[in-house]
Amino acid sequence: MKNCIIGQSGGPTCAINATLCGVIKGALNHNIPHIYGALNGIQGIIDDKIIALEETFSDIYMQRLLTQTPAAFLGSCRLKLSSYKENKEIYERIFSVFEKYNIGYFFYIGGNDSMDTVARLSEYANENKKDVKIIGVPKTIDNDLPETDHTPGFGSAAKYIATTVREIAYDSAVYNLKSVTIIEIMGRNAGWLTCASALAREPGNPSPHLIYLPERVFDCDDFLEKVKQEVAIYNNIVVCVSEGIKDKSGKYVCESVASGLKDAFGHTYLSGTSKVLEKLVREKLGYKARGIELNVCQRCASHIASKTDIDESLMAGEAAVNLAFLGQTGVMAAILRTGINPYKSEIFSCDVNKCAGKEKVVPDEFISADGCDITKKAIDYLSPLIMGECEIIYENGVPKYLSKNNI
Amino acid sequence: MKNCIIGQSGGPTCAINATLCGVIKGALNHNIPHIYGALNGIQGIIDDKIIALEETFSDIYMQRLLTQTPAAFLGSCRLKLSSYKENKEIYERIFSVFEKYNIGYFFYIGGNDSMDTVARLSEYANENKKDVKIIGVPKTIDNDLPETDHTPGFGSAAKYIATTVREIAYDSAVYNLKSVTIIEIMGRNAGWLTCASALAREPGNPSPHLIYLPERVFDCDDFLEKVKQEVAIYNNIVVCVSEGIKDKSGKYVCESVASGLKDAFGHTYLSGTSKVLEKLVREKLGYKARGIELNVCQRCASHIASKTDIDESLMAGEAAVNLAFLGQTGVMAAILRTGINPYKSEIFSCDVNKCAGKEKVVPDEFISADGCDITKKAIDYLSPLIMGECEIIYENGVPKYLSKNNI
Repeated sequence: MKNCIIGQSGGPTCAINATLCGVIKGALNHNIPHIYGALNGIQGIIDDKIIALEETFSDIYMQRLLTQTPAAFLGSCRLKLSSYKENKEIYERIFSVFEKYNIGYFFYIGGNDSMDTVARLSEYANENKKDVKIIGVPKTIDNDLPETDHTPGFGSAAKYIATTVREIAYDSAVYNLKSVTIIEIMGRNAGWLTCASALAREPGNPSPHLIYLPERVFDCDDFLEKVKQEVAIYNNIVVCVSEGIKDKSGKYVCESVASGLKDAFGHTYLSGTSKVLEKLVREKLGYKARGIELNVCQRCASHIASKTDIDESLMAGEAAVNLAFLGQTGVMAAILRTGINPYKSEIFSCDVNKCAGKEKVVPDEFISADGCDITKKAIDYLSPLIMGECEIIYENGVPKYLSKNNI
Repeated sequence: MKNCIIGQSGGPTCAINATLCGVIKGALNHNIPHIYGALNGIQGIIDDKIIALEETFSDIYMQRLLTQTPAAFLGSCRLKLSSYKENKEIYERIFSVFEKYNIGYFFYIGGNDSMDTVARLSEYANENKKDVKIIGVPKTIDNDLPETDHTPGFGSAAKYIATTVREIAYDSAVYNLKSVTIIEIMGRNAGWLTCASALAREPGNPSPHLIYLPERVFDCDDFLEKVKQEVAIYNNIVVCVSEGIKDKSGKYVCESVASGLKDAFGHTYLSGTSKVLEKLVREKLGYKARGIELNVCQRCASHIASKTDIDESLMAGEAAVNLAFLGQTGVMAAILRTGINPYKSEIFSCDVNKCAGKEKVVPDEFISADGCDITKKAIDYLSPLIMGECEIIYENGVPKYLSKNNI
């Protein structure tokens, strides 16, 4: 019987190790003799940096720890394979390593670039009659993959954002003065995570008062006018913005507003979007202002992961192995929403070419007419994805996570 | 029987509402008829903006929600009372409001400035034969109050920092390249919270590799040299710095390094310490670098509050009422560490003048000889304070918090 190998690729999330665990569980269920992990994604295959996983992770407790660990247990990479025509050698190298380890199944967990790798490798395998099933499993906090209803990793990031925005809203309201708090959320081209900030709202507390996505052109004057209106009503307000908002000329807001700024080394200074808007509000409107960049915490705060997300990530990993054993290749284990109230989902097989290198942005029907809020339709789509809390194992007051250095 | 009034003051924390709940529970235990809350601290007394709390918070479920809510339920202020000699009117105003509400007990929850208010009001009461007991209850994430072993609010901020630094360390290690992540932690003059980052360490994972406190002079060249050494060993490293680190001339690092920088409006640009060091590392050493400011999340992330901290904060609130009923005034309900293994603590009464307006910094014995780490003694002091997780009530996937707008 053939062995399998698993790789993780692209930006870290809270759920990519849950998917890794799902693939391991699936492989154990199918009695695959050796379950290998490639260190740093496809690069680890090229460099023959490969570890065995079946022994350590046959243990249920280790599976639980792996599932709750953020980032990427196997390490990640950003390597994009060039086409088979351009660089035949790298494909031959990869498949010779597959042969060395008697690999019959390769599972690649990642975003749209990683799905491109899955597409290219399965095409190569087909054309060259290599009996290796190549299966993709989606992963990205950005939720920008087509075909899948949403991506593993997104729900946990969304839950972190909803929780943190609510906590910041409480924090920012304690003093009796006019203030504007601007929270910068990840997403260069797709505003999905910024949409999730709306889940912080509750009856009586409408924070965030304004939400700006990269799907709409950002206008500074209009922004200042809206801030003035909201402050007049609420005194303290919270504004959530995507890091990737651009003005009408297509320039990032952080570039256009701060342009001309030089740093101590004489280079153009590119401050974050929230800091640029903080200064704008302070200078133009005279309110107390604070810019907050949620930064990488959005993608690694596993202590507050969404149970729905972690469960689906495990499920997608297990399903990927089932698809391989059904003889499929060049497919991605995608999520289908099968129930609305109560929410239900299942995994389906989707041609990886439908999402390889493609990007799904927030649709018009999810964005309010004035461009600075989201619609009820968006809330209905987002709400189930942040439901449920995971039971986290702590040690000495800190969540216990797994790395190659501490197992 | 006389009534009581409670105020909250200074920066928000995760534990100040637990202390408020503790005072309410203590007041209910002593059958105080009316339990009032002053909105926005002492300012609410001056302005007669006062609400009744006894009805809402006789309910156990509401007590639980209040206890888990971050920020300051009653609102806060930064008002410092001038002396009785300078501004007699304000003291007369405060005590006339006390008289109007038949107040016999005033509990003020806050940091060293608030303890100054407690000292001044109790002195005034004594000199003018006013029968109002004035009791302080400590609160600050900064842990910079003397006399008390530590301050309510500190343990929860420390737990958030330890958890987040560990999560960021995992996140920053996924790519196989030299990188430096610089995490900026609150604390202008006292480095207590930055010390807590060391609790992120575990066997095999020494992040944070370097820790810089405001108690030591920061030297840029020495910093770059140390970063180089650590990167040579570990490839990816994490550095934790207090926002308030200063160079040998006494200038904040963010000012000294970025000096000369002008923003779009022609004003000197003061970027955060972490962003300044991020640029320094990138420009001088050529490594990938990322600055992360933990910002207000440090003081409002109630979803990951320390159970030890929340329990002690409740306990301090209840004890404050007991002290008032013992006839004490002008005192603070401080924490005494009474057991080491297992950790135990109790509340004692301390003369508020011993901490009013005073600041406790990290002692020399807690800082390593090379000035960029902490000692085992510091770890032993800090460890028990982050122990235990609170059972948080969630609603729709987000922690349920209480505000005046949603009760």
